[in-house]
Amino acid sequence: MEDREKLPGTGRIEAFSDGVIAIIITIMILELKVPAESIARGSFAGVVRELGPNLFAYALSFVIVAIMLLNHHSIMRAAGHATNGLYWWNANLLFWMSLIPLATAGFGQAPGQPLAVALYGAVMFVCGISFTLLRRCASRLSPADRDLAGFNRRNDAKNALFAALYGLSVPLAYVSVVISIAIFVVVAMAYFLPSRLPDER
Amino acid sequence: MEDREKLPGTGRIEAFSDGVIAIIITIMILELKVPAESIARGSFAGVVRELGPNLFAYALSFVIVAIMLLNHHSIMRAAGHATNGLYWWNANLLFWMSLIPLATAGFGQAPGQPLAVALYGAVMFVCGISFTLLRRCASRLSPADRDLAGFNRRNDAKNALFAALYGLSVPLAYVSVVISIAIFVVVAMAYFLPSRLPDER
Amino acid sequence: MEDREKLPGTGRIEAFSDGVIAIIITIMILELKVPAESIARGSFAGVVRELGPNLFAYALSFVIVAIMLLNHHSIMRAAGHATNGLYWWNANLLFWMSLIPLATAGFGQAPGQPLAVALYGAVMFVCGISFTLLRRCASRLSPADRDLAGFNRRNDAKNALFAALYGLSVPLAYVSVVISIAIFVVVAMAYFLPSRLPDER
Amino acid sequence: MEDREKLPGTGRIEAFSDGVIAIIITIMILELKVPAESIARGSFAGVVRELGPNLFAYALSFVIVAIMLLNHHSIMRAAGHATNGLYWWNANLLFWMSLIPLATAGFGQAPGQPLAVALYGAVMFVCGISFTLLRRCASRLSPADRDLAGFNRRNDAKNALFAALYGLSVPLAYVSVVISIAIFVVVAMAYFLPSRLPDER
Repeated sequence: MEDREKLPGTGRIEAFSDGVIAIIITIMILELKVPAESIARGSFAGVVRELGPNLFAYALSFVIVAIMLLNHHSIMRAAGHATNGLYWWNANLLFWMSLIPLATAGFGQAPGQPLAVALYGAVMFVCGISFTLLRRCASRLSPADRDLAGFNRRNDAKNALFAALYGLSVPLAYVSVVISIAIFVVVAMAYFLPSRLPDER
Repeated sequence: MEDREKLPGTGRIEAFSDGVIAIIITIMILELKVPAESIARGSFAGVVRELGPNLFAYALSFVIVAIMLLNHHSIMRAAGHATNGLYWWNANLLFWMSLIPLATAGFGQAPGQPLAVALYGAVMFVCGISFTLLRRCASRLSPADRDLAGFNRRNDAKNALFAALYGLSVPLAYVSVVISIAIFVVVAMAYFLPSRLPDER
Repeated sequence: MEDREKLPGTGRIEAFSDGVIAIIITIMILELKVPAESIARGSFAGVVRELGPNLFAYALSFVIVAIMLLNHHSIMRAAGHATNGLYWWNANLLFWMSLIPLATAGFGQAPGQPLAVALYGAVMFVCGISFTLLRRCASRLSPADRDLAGFNRRNDAKNALFAALYGLSVPLAYVSVVISIAIFVVVAMAYFLPSRLPDER
Repeated sequence: MEDREKLPGTGRIEAFSDGVIAIIITIMILELKVPAESIARGSFAGVVRELGPNLFAYALSFVIVAIMLLNHHSIMRAAGHATNGLYWWNANLLFWMSLIPLATAGFGQAPGQPLAVALYGAVMFVCGISFTLLRRCASRLSPADRDLAGFNRRNDAKNALFAALYGLSVPLAYVSVVISIAIFVVVAMAYFLPSRLPDER
């Protein structure tokens, strides 16, 4: 017990990650500017027109970040304890995730512009890769649990597919932004398909 | 003990929610701009005039968010452990709550404009509905405790009433913004009526 | 043990307070604008002139908020467990503390303007009163510990004195802002005089 | 057990520090403005030109802050319990760290301007000194553990070297900003050389 207490837990990595992720959401909200003029004119249509695309981009990113947070929880539980390696793969992930607000704001301001959509897809793609790298590091820390290993393998396959789709969304934005946006929405939706953790059976 | 430790607790959901809720308050503070010109002129009346409506809107939202946080605590304690369902009903609530700063800023900038008041009421209404959905999910996770069940039923009724009042405030803002604002204040005040948790008797 | 676990601890109140207090510091940092022009000209004197008063106001508020956080820790430890009353006295305190960034920004922008200094003093005064009210509520929750009771009494006296000084700083700002600013500095410094918690002997 | 529970742990100091550190990262992200015009024109080169220096400064500071956070973890684990002294040395560190976003924004906006680079180096230098002071205070609180003492000694030497390099970067910026920037990058990279905590062998 004494020894385990001295072993660095994942507590502060999780707390720090939660902090950064909560902050990512904050910054996305800050990008939603009050449509002051439309409100002053009492124009509901104006509010929708001004706020609509930004609100759609925010809602999409909110769902994606919430999925990432859920994955983050399951990765940290799998890891069980902290090492320098885990810390830095996690920091790498948080760095790329911290660019999501920027990508979201760009996307919300110009949803029809291929460059804005491609940048959004690119950030999500790099986040997907970073998740895979973090998950691998975490799996190495807890190889004993067989159920979890199987779960991680299935999850790895799923994440690799989704990361590949995000990667595809970058060039496809220059074919049609609609295809790329459809990819974002479908990937986000796909996470709601049941995929329970072994200990939640 | 081992098993319970592996069971996902509500800890990180709570920590994340606290983070987002703290952030909601931050963003509301950020909307309170320093009335630099009135201060430079040394005009207290100017400070009050510039800051007054925004400060009122902030104080109202602060109380409402504090009530929501208190409810959130009691819901999470009732749930006891986390599931994917609880996570997503909670994420749904946080999404709508994250629009409170926007609604507050709109309301504070144009407290006499029906559209601003109606949007404020609409956001609170959707938050109320989201709370009911989260509470239902949490209750299902802990059906055994009879005292808590009774408490939850009473709370459900109260929340349904308050959500309905928020819903009414949306059309009523077009009759008179004063009625809607009165509803916001009365609902906030009503929460201070005693309604203790069973374990606080 | 089971029962104590069900008793609502002060954990989430503390976590939420820490969140809000950390955020107060954030917003104060956000008010420190990069003196872009002076940097572009390479003028160190310009950087000091532009940033100086704001940095002084920020440093002062940072120390005051850090003192408040330390007091908050000791109050929560004294309380031991949470009640609705404690929650709301704490929310009341956080509301007034959340106005510190606004008061700090006003003070930093116009340190020679009596109104700015008086508003700063007024916010600190109300925070002092709110602390006394929270401390009283917390003391009632743990009347058994005699050492702590003595400590709290001494602390109450000290806090009452400091709150009174903050109160005085409001009218005195109209005599001379220097007197009020001296009060702010002296009160902040006074907290560094030794006053250990009984369990830190 | 009872007694230890009453002894103030480092929990809230850590939680508060994590909050402030997470916030430092937030503010740095907020300084990354969406290059709206370049996106609207669909110019990738424009996005890179506008965002490039700021993104480089942000990435550098992100790595430095992540290293600081890791050091902070190990210092707090070494301290084991909280005292007023530890609290204030920690507050002193957080104050100087809270100026990192400002220094980063100045650096990102004018990476070729000696003053901007020197101010960045100066803030890092003072942070390095503050870390040494905090580490000394923490070491005094846990003199018994011999492994940790040796580890701390080695770390002290390393930190003193790095702080000295940051100190040198200030005057060197006026010789050539490239030298100072190289120092920043080298110091950040040097932390990735293996230096495990004794309990991670």
